[in-house]
Amino acid sequence: MTMTLQLQSTVRNNGTLEVSLVNIEVPAPGAEEVIVRIEAAPINPSDLGLLFGPADINAASTTERNGLPLLSAPIPSELQAGVSARAEQALPVGNEGAGVVVEAGASDAAQALLGKTVALLGGAMYTQYRCAAASNCLVLAEGVSPRDGASCFVNPLTALGMVETMKLENHSALVHTAAASNLGQMLNKLCLADDVPLVNVVRNPAQVEILHGIGAQYVCNSCDDNFMDTLTDVIAQTNATIAFDAIAGGQLASDILSAMERVAERNSSPSNRYGSTTHKQVYLYGVLDNSPTVLNRSYGMAWGVGGWLLPSFLARVGIERGDELRQRVASEITSTFASHYTQEISLAQALQVQTAKRYQRKATREKYLINPNKDV
Amino acid sequence: MTMTLQLQSTVRNNGTLEVSLVNIEVPAPGAEEVIVRIEAAPINPSDLGLLFGPADINAASTTERNGLPLLSAPIPSELQAGVSARAEQALPVGNEGAGVVVEAGASDAAQALLGKTVALLGGAMYTQYRCAAASNCLVLAEGVSPRDGASCFVNPLTALGMVETMKLENHSALVHTAAASNLGQMLNKLCLADDVPLVNVVRNPAQVEILHGIGAQYVCNSCDDNFMDTLTDVIAQTNATIAFDAIAGGQLASDILSAMERVAERNSSPSNRYGSTTHKQVYLYGVLDNSPTVLNRSYGMAWGVGGWLLPSFLARVGIERGDELRQRVASEITSTFASHYTQEISLAQALQVQTAKRYQRKATREKYLINPNKDV
Repeated sequence: MTMTLQLQSTVRNNGTLEVSLVNIEVPAPGAEEVIVRIEAAPINPSDLGLLFGPADINAASTTERNGLPLLSAPIPSELQAGVSARAEQALPVGNEGAGVVVEAGASDAAQALLGKTVALLGGAMYTQYRCAAASNCLVLAEGVSPRDGASCFVNPLTALGMVETMKLENHSALVHTAAASNLGQMLNKLCLADDVPLVNVVRNPAQVEILHGIGAQYVCNSCDDNFMDTLTDVIAQTNATIAFDAIAGGQLASDILSAMERVAERNSSPSNRYGSTTHKQVYLYGVLDNSPTVLNRSYGMAWGVGGWLLPSFLARVGIERGDELRQRVASEITSTFASHYTQEISLAQALQVQTAKRYQRKATREKYLINPNKDV
Repeated sequence: MTMTLQLQSTVRNNGTLEVSLVNIEVPAPGAEEVIVRIEAAPINPSDLGLLFGPADINAASTTERNGLPLLSAPIPSELQAGVSARAEQALPVGNEGAGVVVEAGASDAAQALLGKTVALLGGAMYTQYRCAAASNCLVLAEGVSPRDGASCFVNPLTALGMVETMKLENHSALVHTAAASNLGQMLNKLCLADDVPLVNVVRNPAQVEILHGIGAQYVCNSCDDNFMDTLTDVIAQTNATIAFDAIAGGQLASDILSAMERVAERNSSPSNRYGSTTHKQVYLYGVLDNSPTVLNRSYGMAWGVGGWLLPSFLARVGIERGDELRQRVASEITSTFASHYTQEISLAQALQVQTAKRYQRKATREKYLINPNKDV
């Protein structure tokens, strides 16, 4: 019987968030299943919501329970109602990861995976051993390590999903915000490879430099005084009419729509007081700013703002197209879709307050990787 | 040669809005054209933007020019840039109207219209005689007056467009705000006739009464203390997942999405922290509140907000479907799509300050009709 250390996040009824490590049994694999020894699982921004909820990590402390570390942090009282649905449930965390298949069920499909390095999506990846359906394993090429393949899904499929959504909705160029992020840099590589014009919006000069350094052609700093003019210029050059925004709060989405409308109006009749007929779209896919989204509606009537979520995108395009996208990721995982990590930590280290404070900042140049089989 | 008195709106470079009456020549009709003596043209909220722009009608005055009335009103300086594109252009006004065909071109189609009462859409309806393409004339049945048929397009097609959009986007019930308006009452009649569940959101008890009086089943007052609970209840009863909002500014659109999400979450897994997968949509089709739209995003990721405009809707469904909808309006113009007017005024009266102040308020129970052939 295999035991595994699993990271769990629990919202307590007393308003405390607890992140703990627990020893649980790994079930024997069914005929169509395998056991993967997880050796690399990234901490993505999209993992932090489940991991820490709205808890105040700056007020966190780490103690021990059953000889294993336990991180506790208070949830501000006004935010407790928002997480009442998950109260007192120990939730495993970790959207994606990669490792080696160490045990396989009886079926041919499962047996064929023995010893292979595979990538997985599906939650509960912050664990040493994970049972998975053989059909869910994305096999990585010979020589590709679990670390190389740890981030096969969230960022690569999001980047591909943005370009695919752009095409599905009849746009020909796109805007991306928080564009110096790991995802943003990947999107630049993808758009360069696929010849899609991409406008990068960032928030400081260092991020401008990062993007120019990787060959980005259109970069704007939203903190510049002449941001709206610069943005309008590059939108005019690219004809971008769709944007993917990771910030969500504040006026940035509205500003992007305004710039798009300025460009569209150059080709419209001035007496059309409902604005241009060019449809302008902003999808909010992240929440770097929790404050409300403020839309001043200075862009006519042909516009939309909405949420964008990877699973909904995959449901929209269907299983077959989703598989094509996944196979493309696997074949370009060390080039177009390569991720870089600044720190590799163990499960126990992930629960140390100082470490937690650092990775929950979602800093541009930092990316953490958990290796659940690294010494605790 | 026929002369016609035409109402024109001009933004002057000095920051003054002028609404004037001018005598112009009506062109002789081409082979496929007719001349319609306009006897009824409504003042819709959608006409007021072109008519008055952002001018301050409370500071308006009426004088005379060339023996005809002239209304002048100052445009607040901070709003002048927004109308610079129309500066010094005399723009005719009036989206729709109806009248009698008094002259026709040589073609059979035009000749067949002589003496008929027809409805027209296309601007410049605040005029005594208007040249129009025969193919643009919607022929009204024997016994239907120009007054009956004056509002065949804007409100009826908007109401039909809302229900049609709801179906096209796979929803089965809808929410409507400012629901006691002329349009809102028409939408109630349409939804009752077509068996579509409709949630009406209004802003005071008198409007609740109006709607109950015409048979509305679901009515909420957004000024009630328990508005969110009431709204959630009726959304649960109807399963409405799309809304059409005439207010636009403030938090109402966001509140509607929140109520929809509360209902959707009852059927979702509580650990899905991206919210329900039920797509929730709000279309903003009016601007009763000019302030920014504020979205608190407390409704997961499956949501959208955007502009909705009748011409864009008609372009989306195509000419054939548009014609079907227009024919339905013509055949139900004295029942489902009947409009009621509280005042019938002449062109000259439309330029009197006291009258202008009243119709620009867009009050719920008031609806003005211009009869350009009424004595000036």
